[in-house]
Amino acid sequence: VSVTLGSIVEALGGVLHGDASSHIIRLAPIASAQKDELAFVAQARYAHQITSTQAGALIVPPALQAAAVVRGACIVTDDPYLYFAQLTQWWRAVHEAARTPQVHSCAWVDPTARVAQGVEIGPFAVIEAGASVATGARIGAHCTVGAGARIGSDTKLAAQVTVAAGCQIGDRCILHPGVVIGADGFGFAPHKGQWVKIEQLGAVRIGNDVEIGANTCIDRGALDDTVIEDGVKLDNLIQIGHNVRIGAHSAMAGCVGVAGSAVIGAHCTVGGGAIVLGHLTLANNVNISAGTVVTRSISKPGHYTGMFPIDDNASWEKNAASLKQLNRLRERLKAAEQAIAKAVHNDSTP
Amino acid sequence: VSVTLGSIVEALGGVLHGDASSHIIRLAPIASAQKDELAFVAQARYAHQITSTQAGALIVPPALQAAAVVRGACIVTDDPYLYFAQLTQWWRAVHEAARTPQVHSCAWVDPTARVAQGVEIGPFAVIEAGASVATGARIGAHCTVGAGARIGSDTKLAAQVTVAAGCQIGDRCILHPGVVIGADGFGFAPHKGQWVKIEQLGAVRIGNDVEIGANTCIDRGALDDTVIEDGVKLDNLIQIGHNVRIGAHSAMAGCVGVAGSAVIGAHCTVGGGAIVLGHLTLANNVNISAGTVVTRSISKPGHYTGMFPIDDNASWEKNAASLKQLNRLRERLKAAEQAIAKAVHNDSTP
Amino acid sequence: VSVTLGSIVEALGGVLHGDASSHIIRLAPIASAQKDELAFVAQARYAHQITSTQAGALIVPPALQAAAVVRGACIVTDDPYLYFAQLTQWWRAVHEAARTPQVHSCAWVDPTARVAQGVEIGPFAVIEAGASVATGARIGAHCTVGAGARIGSDTKLAAQVTVAAGCQIGDRCILHPGVVIGADGFGFAPHKGQWVKIEQLGAVRIGNDVEIGANTCIDRGALDDTVIEDGVKLDNLIQIGHNVRIGAHSAMAGCVGVAGSAVIGAHCTVGGGAIVLGHLTLANNVNISAGTVVTRSISKPGHYTGMFPIDDNASWEKNAASLKQLNRLRERLKAAEQAIAKAVHNDSTP
Repeated sequence: VSVTLGSIVEALGGVLHGDASSHIIRLAPIASAQKDELAFVAQARYAHQITSTQAGALIVPPALQAAAVVRGACIVTDDPYLYFAQLTQWWRAVHEAARTPQVHSCAWVDPTARVAQGVEIGPFAVIEAGASVATGARIGAHCTVGAGARIGSDTKLAAQVTVAAGCQIGDRCILHPGVVIGADGFGFAPHKGQWVKIEQLGAVRIGNDVEIGANTCIDRGALDDTVIEDGVKLDNLIQIGHNVRIGAHSAMAGCVGVAGSAVIGAHCTVGGGAIVLGHLTLANNVNISAGTVVTRSISKPGHYTGMFPIDDNASWEKNAASLKQLNRLRERLKAAEQAIAKAVHNDSTP
Repeated sequence: VSVTLGSIVEALGGVLHGDASSHIIRLAPIASAQKDELAFVAQARYAHQITSTQAGALIVPPALQAAAVVRGACIVTDDPYLYFAQLTQWWRAVHEAARTPQVHSCAWVDPTARVAQGVEIGPFAVIEAGASVATGARIGAHCTVGAGARIGSDTKLAAQVTVAAGCQIGDRCILHPGVVIGADGFGFAPHKGQWVKIEQLGAVRIGNDVEIGANTCIDRGALDDTVIEDGVKLDNLIQIGHNVRIGAHSAMAGCVGVAGSAVIGAHCTVGGGAIVLGHLTLANNVNISAGTVVTRSISKPGHYTGMFPIDDNASWEKNAASLKQLNRLRERLKAAEQAIAKAVHNDSTP
Repeated sequence: VSVTLGSIVEALGGVLHGDASSHIIRLAPIASAQKDELAFVAQARYAHQITSTQAGALIVPPALQAAAVVRGACIVTDDPYLYFAQLTQWWRAVHEAARTPQVHSCAWVDPTARVAQGVEIGPFAVIEAGASVATGARIGAHCTVGAGARIGSDTKLAAQVTVAAGCQIGDRCILHPGVVIGADGFGFAPHKGQWVKIEQLGAVRIGNDVEIGANTCIDRGALDDTVIEDGVKLDNLIQIGHNVRIGAHSAMAGCVGVAGSAVIGAHCTVGGGAIVLGHLTLANNVNISAGTVVTRSISKPGHYTGMFPIDDNASWEKNAASLKQLNRLRERLKAAEQAIAKAVHNDSTP
């Protein structure tokens, strides 16, 4: 299905330079875009891409309008990356086949569950007793919505998602395959060398417009709930411990682990593979680099890092060996400084 | 459903000070507990919490009895945290609806599988040929119990759990959603730049009272079995490689990876995101900090760490750059020390 | 089921020394092998194992033939480890019950899906509209093959695997339980402190002979596809971001994360828990150590590492504290060197 440049601008705005009836068959990266394809240049510093691309049309910022017009059709907009994001959404909506929401004949819905009109439930999905699914929601194949759980309107659960008993998911959320919401938090009391389970009596509450990546897990709280605020975006294979709170519009990359009772502010970002220890507090607008272990609370917005720099292995081995003697090196340096100071003193005191 | 303080003490012991007929409607964290709620103070050093809490009743150690009695009802017990753990179990048992174990009409149980009386099997669960499920076990929705696998009595598999062919799970275990027991270990022989698969002919054997977190994976052994001993507790998203052995009552936090053939002792703990390399041995009572890569065997009990300390990014950049020259710095320091020694020597040898 | 040494050599080659009619009941590790069992010694440096093992027969390289023949039966082959790998495959084939491929009565196959002859589809599997499954493929219980997805011939999906719409899996691949292929990549445009979703319009293309470990996730591309080339082997719980390309015959250990648009060469290895940041390029034949964060492109083959060396916690604390002052230490050392140089200069310039 192709669309015209005119129809794009009509839907999403921007100023079109060029033939509104030109057809676009695909959105493409600028480096590989072909003549029937549309690409974007996010910022003026990528101007050099304009001359080399084969794209049929470009989305550019005002600063690049002149350069873009010279080579062919373009849509000028203040924020091409945002425009591109909105365009992908429009593109999907235009191309997606019309859906007739229905409860699949192979799904199993408990008679006491409340499923609104216009809900789609896939094959072999399970909706347990007392659960509710709001209008426009889509429950994928093999999902389990536990007893008393609530799924908000227009929220989409992909295949194989588990929402355990009593957990709540807001509106317009997206949960990717294999997500587990509301497994027990990791809580045990030590007793004579063994672990006595602390039943996890809280649940998970997830706000609106939250997206959760494949196989990511968010544990239920011990007593209070684990809370994910509006607009949070979590990538794949993330672990969120019990009673964590993640502030609105924070985002985390894949493989992050957040231990129990950590409180993360709004508008934070956490890089891939980072670990946040338990019972810490991160202020709003904190950015954690990939691979960093956060071992203390952070009260000031800013960018924080703790990662051993990569090196060729032979160099790393030498430096790592020295690192294990670093404190001793510091003491030796101090002694050397004192010897120098003494020598200088002796020289200057005849 | 509310319970009385008297019924709690009757079930779990401890000495009650206050009105046995007082109703408790919830267990709560001490900071947010309200007048109908019960909270605990684990240790005397948290004594300050006693005066500020609004909790209707407290669980306290003997050292805090006097302070607690002054403000209202309390249960005195030697180990409040343990008491709290036991209380959560009792609380859940009291509040949970009575179950009538049954095999769901939508489950698929192979005719040659042996399912004991009193087993609960959820919708769309699959019990393959020759598998056995012991009395009191609960198999959640969408679980797969592979051919010849064995599930012990009173063990609970949450939704979406896979136990592959021939694997054995002990009694009273809990496997959270998405757990995968018995996928193939990662074994290949290199041959002309390609990888030739080593079929994994072993299985997984899991002891009693083991808890395994959501989406955690334990691979089957290459020839012998992978073994998880009694009382081990694994958090979410942990990877246990083939032929690993984890000793009794060890516990691991989320996102840990243990490579093949590692042998971990009893009563060990491994912090979140730590990696244990293959073919290593860790003694009993070893504690590994979060984010640490264990690159060698550890024969002495103790606490071990290897993690780059977090810092503001600008400071980290400077220190990381210096770190890549650390061995050179060490050599420079040595040269400086020698120069000083020589100068001192010259001074003292006229 | 036992097999004879003769039947093994007949199937796999090698030179047998000893009684071809000897029965072998199990393949075993050399340290624990018993008299009816067959073990291997990979290299001459493990020669000491030959004298101590109880194994009924050994697979050895030519250099160990003399030592092995002295103690009993052996198969001599140039590469015993490769031979062992092939033996495990033959062993499994011999011992596995004959299968009668069929579509399980509890599976749900859309009428527009194309399922070849000789395909096995497990209970509660879902094959969506327009998907195709080639001959000899096996689709496990609870798998979801999305609309228009393609599964190659002789490829095996274990239980609970999700292959999202439009993704392609090659021939002879193995996808372990919980694998998620084709969840949305993690792409958002920032806008007024919130995140605007970039619909992920690409898919995932996986070559032939690829093995993917349990609960590993490979995201679909934003515009172009994410690509995994032939012969790649991925362990469990790995995250592959959108538009990543992994070159042929590369292998990654568990818990690795590869961020979006990274391009990894052929014949690379990545150790457990390593993180590769986005938009980087790794040359062919690059080896990354466990726990390393790859923060820059690597153009030269070789072995690269970045990991804080593990130490007892008390030593680590001292060295980590010094590390946060390392750049300052470097400056102090420079000052000391200058003071020494000046002193030496003064001494030598009367």
